[in-house]
Amino acid sequence: MSIYLSSRTQSLSPYIPGEQPQDKRYIKLNTNENPYPPSPKVIQAINDALSSLRLYPDPESTTLRESIASYYGVKVEEVFVGNGSDEVLAIAFMSFFMPDRAVIYPDVTYTFYEVYAGLFGLKSMTVPVNRDFSLDLEPFCKNNSGVVIANPNAPTGIAIDIKDVELLLRTNPDNVVILDEAYIDFGGKSAVSLIDKYKNLLVVQTLSKSRSLAGLRVGFAIGSSELIEGLNRVKNSFNSYPVDRLAMAGAIAAIEDEDYFREITGKIINTRQRVKGQLKGLGFEMTESQANFLFITHPEIEARRLFVELKEMGILTRHFNRPRIDNYLRVTIGTDQEMDSFLKATEEILDKTKRLG
Amino acid sequence: MSIYLSSRTQSLSPYIPGEQPQDKRYIKLNTNENPYPPSPKVIQAINDALSSLRLYPDPESTTLRESIASYYGVKVEEVFVGNGSDEVLAIAFMSFFMPDRAVIYPDVTYTFYEVYAGLFGLKSMTVPVNRDFSLDLEPFCKNNSGVVIANPNAPTGIAIDIKDVELLLRTNPDNVVILDEAYIDFGGKSAVSLIDKYKNLLVVQTLSKSRSLAGLRVGFAIGSSELIEGLNRVKNSFNSYPVDRLAMAGAIAAIEDEDYFREITGKIINTRQRVKGQLKGLGFEMTESQANFLFITHPEIEARRLFVELKEMGILTRHFNRPRIDNYLRVTIGTDQEMDSFLKATEEILDKTKRLG
Repeated sequence: MSIYLSSRTQSLSPYIPGEQPQDKRYIKLNTNENPYPPSPKVIQAINDALSSLRLYPDPESTTLRESIASYYGVKVEEVFVGNGSDEVLAIAFMSFFMPDRAVIYPDVTYTFYEVYAGLFGLKSMTVPVNRDFSLDLEPFCKNNSGVVIANPNAPTGIAIDIKDVELLLRTNPDNVVILDEAYIDFGGKSAVSLIDKYKNLLVVQTLSKSRSLAGLRVGFAIGSSELIEGLNRVKNSFNSYPVDRLAMAGAIAAIEDEDYFREITGKIINTRQRVKGQLKGLGFEMTESQANFLFITHPEIEARRLFVELKEMGILTRHFNRPRIDNYLRVTIGTDQEMDSFLKATEEILDKTKRLG
Repeated sequence: MSIYLSSRTQSLSPYIPGEQPQDKRYIKLNTNENPYPPSPKVIQAINDALSSLRLYPDPESTTLRESIASYYGVKVEEVFVGNGSDEVLAIAFMSFFMPDRAVIYPDVTYTFYEVYAGLFGLKSMTVPVNRDFSLDLEPFCKNNSGVVIANPNAPTGIAIDIKDVELLLRTNPDNVVILDEAYIDFGGKSAVSLIDKYKNLLVVQTLSKSRSLAGLRVGFAIGSSELIEGLNRVKNSFNSYPVDRLAMAGAIAAIEDEDYFREITGKIINTRQRVKGQLKGLGFEMTESQANFLFITHPEIEARRLFVELKEMGILTRHFNRPRIDNYLRVTIGTDQEMDSFLKATEEILDKTKRLG
C-alpha cells in the first residue's frame, strides 16, 4: 500500500458492490435492478436536456427538488438530492454523526453503513437481529446515538411497521433517525408523512430501484428543513453540482410519470408473490420480503453452492460471505420470463443434488 | 441551526459557486463554462446509452478510464474518474491528507481547497502569492505537508512552468503533490508525463471546461497506480457508482474527438488573446492568463462597481469578495460575439465613470 495514504485510508474496508461480469450475457438477479426500462418520458426528457450540456447544472437542483416535493406533499426546502442514495447516505453520515455522535444499526443490514462509519471515523454499534431476521427495537430506543434503519431491511426484505418507526422517533428525540427506504415502493409504508411531527427524521430514497434508473444515479432525502440545511452545508463543502443535467431531467420525468411507476412496481410485486410460492414448493425457506428481491435458503443445498451453479448456468444472484447470512441467497425479482428461467435452473440443481445424495 | 448537526458540520463554511440567476437571459461569463457545445459525437454516444438506464453503471468506469489512459498514454490503473473534478479533489483530500497529514496551498487559489480542509478537519497552511499573483515556490519545497497547486491557478490564470512542477515533486518526496489542471488545455503544459518519474504526483483534470461538459459532471485524476488505489479505497467507501451511464458515454466520446477539442480550445485561446489586447487598450491591467478567463482590474473603476453595472446590462462576470483580489473581476472567455458585447458594455461603463468623474 502506498506510503502516501492517510492512516484512515489505509485502514478502510470498502464496500463491494455486486459483480458486473462482462464475460457473457447473464440473467442479472444480483443487484436489485428493475427488470423494466424507465418510463418513455424519461428518455424524451433527457433528449430535451442534451442541448445545454456545456453549462453547469443548477447547484440547488431546484426543479428536481420541486418535483419530489410535489409528489410527496412536502416543501421544497425539505428535499435534498444527490448522486445516488449512496451519496445521500454518505453525506447524511458526515452531516449528523462525525466523531461526536456515534451511530447504531442492525448487524444484518446494508453493509455500506459499516463502511461509512469506518470512512468517517465514527463510533458505531450494531444490534443483532433475531434468528428470523426480525428486528428487536428496544436497544434502539434507549441509546444515545444516531440510528440508521433500512426499511424494508436489506438483504432480508423485512419491513417494520410505521408504528415502530414512530416509537424509534419518539424515543430518540436527541438523535437523528435515518430511514433508508431504498425498497419502500415494493410494499412497505413510507415514513415521509412523519417529517412534520418528528424533526429528527430523515427519509432516504432512490430512483435506482422502483423508477428503473440505476444507471442515472439519483437519490434523495426528505426531512425537516433544518436537517436538509445541514446536508446542504456538507454537500456544498464536497461537490457543488452532484446531480448532472441529464440525471435531473430524467429523474423529474420518472417522478412525474406515476401511472408507469404504479404499473411496473405492481408487476414486480405480483411476480415476487408468484415466485415466492413456487420456491416454497421447492422446499426453500425465506423471509417475508417487501422488497424487489427474495432472501432464500434451502435445507438441502448450501447457498454458496447454489450461487455457483446458478452462475454457471448464466444466472447471477447475490451471496454474502458474512456471518449469519452465508447460507442465504438474495435473488432480485426480474421479469416473469427471467424468473421462470431461474426457477427451472434452481429445480435442476436441486434434482441433481438429491440424485448425487 | 439544527441541534442534530455534528459539531464539524456546524462550523463549516461551504463553497459558494458562481450565481446562476434565472430572472433573465444573461451573457454568462461568470463560471468558466465553454461557450461552444460539446462534440456532436457526445450527443450520439449519450443517445446510444439511453437503452440501458435501468442497469447500474460499471462501478470501475473501465471504458472511460481506458479512453483517458489511451489519450494520455498512461495505464488504465493510473486513472481515476469521478462526478466532476470537485468530487475527485474531495476524495483526494480524504485519501491522502486526513488529520495526520496537513496540506499547503497558495492564499489566492481555488477556494474549494480551504473548504475541503474544513470539511475533513485538516490542518492547512497557505502561502501568500506575490503582489503580481506569481507564486514563490520555496515555501512549498521545505514543508512537511501535502501540496495542492492549481495550474494554471484560479482565479488568476497564471501557469507555472513544468520545471517548477518538477522542483515541487523532487522536494516533496514524502508528500502527495496534487496539481489541479482544470484549465490546462487553454495554454499550460500538463504534468501527466511526470507520473512515472514521481510516485507522489496526482494530476486532476475536468471535462467541464475544455470539453464543454460542465452539465455532465466528469472529472479525473492521473497518478501512480498506488495513489489511484488509495482514491479507489475512499471512493468505494463513499459511493460505488459515482459516474452514471450517460456521463460515461458522453465523456468517452468527448475524449476521443480530438479534432473538435483542438478546434474549440484554439478558438477560445485566439479570442482570449484578442480580448486581452482590447482590454489593455481600455486601460485594464491583468495577469498573463493561460486559462479560459481573464483576471482584470482597472485603475479608474472599482471591480465591484463594474461587476454590478455589467450585470445590470445583462452580462455576468465573477467578483470575489476576498482579501487581495476584491478589486479584480474574473471574466470567462465566451464566443467572439459575447466578448464584443462585453467589451462594448465595459467601454460604456468606463465612459460614464469618467464623465461623472
